Amino acid sequence: MALAQALIRRRSVTPADDGALDVVQGALESLGFQCWRLPFAEVDNLFARRGTAGPHFCFAGHTDVVPPGDEALWRHPPFGAEVHDGVLYGRGAQDMKGDIAAFIAAIPDDLPGSLSLLITGDEEGPSVNGTVKVLEWMAANGQIPDACLVGEPTSKAVLGDTLKIGRRGSMNAYVTVHGTQGHSAYPQKADNPVHRLVAAIAELTSKPIDDGSEWFEATTLQVTGLQVDNTATNVIPAEARCFLNIRFNERHTSASLTEHLREVLARHAPRHDLRVVVSGESFVTQPGPFVDALVKATARATNITPQLDTGGGTSDARFITRYCPVAELGLVGSTMHKTDECVPVAELEALSRLYANVIREFFS
Amino acid sequence: MALAQALIRRRSVTPADDGALDVVQGALESLGFQCWRLPFAEVDNLFARRGTAGPHFCFAGHTDVVPPGDEALWRHPPFGAEVHDGVLYGRGAQDMKGDIAAFIAAIPDDLPGSLSLLITGDEEGPSVNGTVKVLEWMAANGQIPDACLVGEPTSKAVLGDTLKIGRRGSMNAYVTVHGTQGHSAYPQKADNPVHRLVAAIAELTSKPIDDGSEWFEATTLQVTGLQVDNTATNVIPAEARCFLNIRFNERHTSASLTEHLREVLARHAPRHDLRVVVSGESFVTQPGPFVDALVKATARATNITPQLDTGGGTSDARFITRYCPVAELGLVGSTMHKTDECVPVAELEALSRLYANVIREFFS
Repeated sequence: MALAQALIRRRSVTPADDGALDVVQGALESLGFQCWRLPFAEVDNLFARRGTAGPHFCFAGHTDVVPPGDEALWRHPPFGAEVHDGVLYGRGAQDMKGDIAAFIAAIPDDLPGSLSLLITGDEEGPSVNGTVKVLEWMAANGQIPDACLVGEPTSKAVLGDTLKIGRRGSMNAYVTVHGTQGHSAYPQKADNPVHRLVAAIAELTSKPIDDGSEWFEATTLQVTGLQVDNTATNVIPAEARCFLNIRFNERHTSASLTEHLREVLARHAPRHDLRVVVSGESFVTQPGPFVDALVKATARATNITPQLDTGGGTSDARFITRYCPVAELGLVGSTMHKTDECVPVAELEALSRLYANVIREFFS
Repeated sequence: MALAQALIRRRSVTPADDGALDVVQGALESLGFQCWRLPFAEVDNLFARRGTAGPHFCFAGHTDVVPPGDEALWRHPPFGAEVHDGVLYGRGAQDMKGDIAAFIAAIPDDLPGSLSLLITGDEEGPSVNGTVKVLEWMAANGQIPDACLVGEPTSKAVLGDTLKIGRRGSMNAYVTVHGTQGHSAYPQKADNPVHRLVAAIAELTSKPIDDGSEWFEATTLQVTGLQVDNTATNVIPAEARCFLNIRFNERHTSASLTEHLREVLARHAPRHDLRVVVSGESFVTQPGPFVDALVKATARATNITPQLDTGGGTSDARFITRYCPVAELGLVGSTMHKTDECVPVAELEALSRLYANVIREFFS
């Protein structure tokens, strides 16, 4: 509780740190962890590890929080960490300063292996100078763990009801098709890029890309925008653009989908520009020893068998999956990002017991 | 010549008249014509007829002209009607004050039937309160002719080389497809109007509407604009719009094409708005006695057999075709709408002889 309150009282709105990582580092050093501060650009990050032997288990989280908005709208000050009627109030109580404190409180004195924490100050922001860069540093320094748990608030109704073992991938594509401008009355002298673009989109959207997988629904492709800078009906325009978003399961990668787009475009619109921005690759940590340990630990702590889930948006787990098995388990996220974000003190304590079980199961 | 000069000296830029119709009326009354001035809104028009018996032949034209632009760019004043080296200069010399003067000069004293002139002041403008309204008046008053010649400058290289017997139709369609807005990640909860619109356009553009006709090239459909007011790639938009232009031959009407659009849209996008603006219906005056008379008269006057043509944009002939056979024959249009619009005096005189032959052939 004291640690959760100390963290909430730091105004660490991305990318500000305001001493939040110092609080974490102080707590971990007192538990015998070696700490590395890893600042990249304006973002500060912390990697801490105790022990050098395997197996190596890592907890990943972030001390940065989203802005409180108009603080006058909060009944209890967002950086006050006040407790009223057994509930702790403050920005980050659920997402995810509370989770970090619960994990640190769960760390036992001695373990047959090593335990580490990857704490970033850039999860709610662009996610460029945070977990991604720390993982690169970890890889370069032999610090990649055998498995990683991300402490995001994944629970839906009650603590432990949901264990996130994967996320869909998401990518945006920006397509420009080039044609040849001309007069609408003489299309044979022009090359209408609208017709070419439409033919390509029609093919891309006419049938499903896949029919889903064991853990995911079908991949979806949605054209979210069309743009042709022409209002003269007697002019065939020179260019036509579209913007599309793909949410994809683990049967695809952003690279394979980009190739699919390029192939369809090449047939209908040889003269095109395609720009792809990948928000995150899809991933799933297939059930196995790691997921089993998490399920067993959760059931023992909460008497609930968690649902294995792959829904929702993105988290830093999408970066960690490139290096090791990763899953996400944490508090109920009912008030995260809202005013009067809060967590019952009893839930924080239950989460700490849950994390203690997770550590015990992993090293057993 | 005097009549052509008097007309050019009137600054009758659409919808201004500046006395141009008075000049025409004065000339026709001196030839025994009965004249009706038919003003509609800001546009003045003239219908003149001599005789009441059939057959009834009509000459249609317009006294309004397009603006001269920067008059300083003209070597000879646009409303000066100056003659230099046998060439008459001025706005309307070719399009089509010269043609009107040539026709009036060709009118013989006596004819076995009746001759009329439909002269509007709104051909170069919106064409709403001109020929259309005069034709309605003529229909209501028993003045519809048996055939009509429009004196537009149809000749390409030399006088009489081209007789226009039809024009393609042109129409614009504005389509809005309604869907249901939603999050790109959950398309099953939304209804993407872009996909529906694209499917409709793909069908409309995937194969030709027809393969042309005896007198026209194939009908063409060109999508000239697309519009989706959404830049957020995580949002499925609520609406998608497109604009398209159809140039059609006489195998279709704007009504039959609208029905085609509506049928395809209904299948792919039941919730849609379709707005159609018809610039002109297609028409062709099939070769027969009237066209034969025009060809014979032209050949006799110029020693050239005119090509029967249906190219180019629109003229008031698109309105006249609803009532009677119509064709277009006039000067070479080499300088129309340009600075220093002009016509050789010899060509004006030749056109007047040509028109005299036309009248003679028609009544023979």
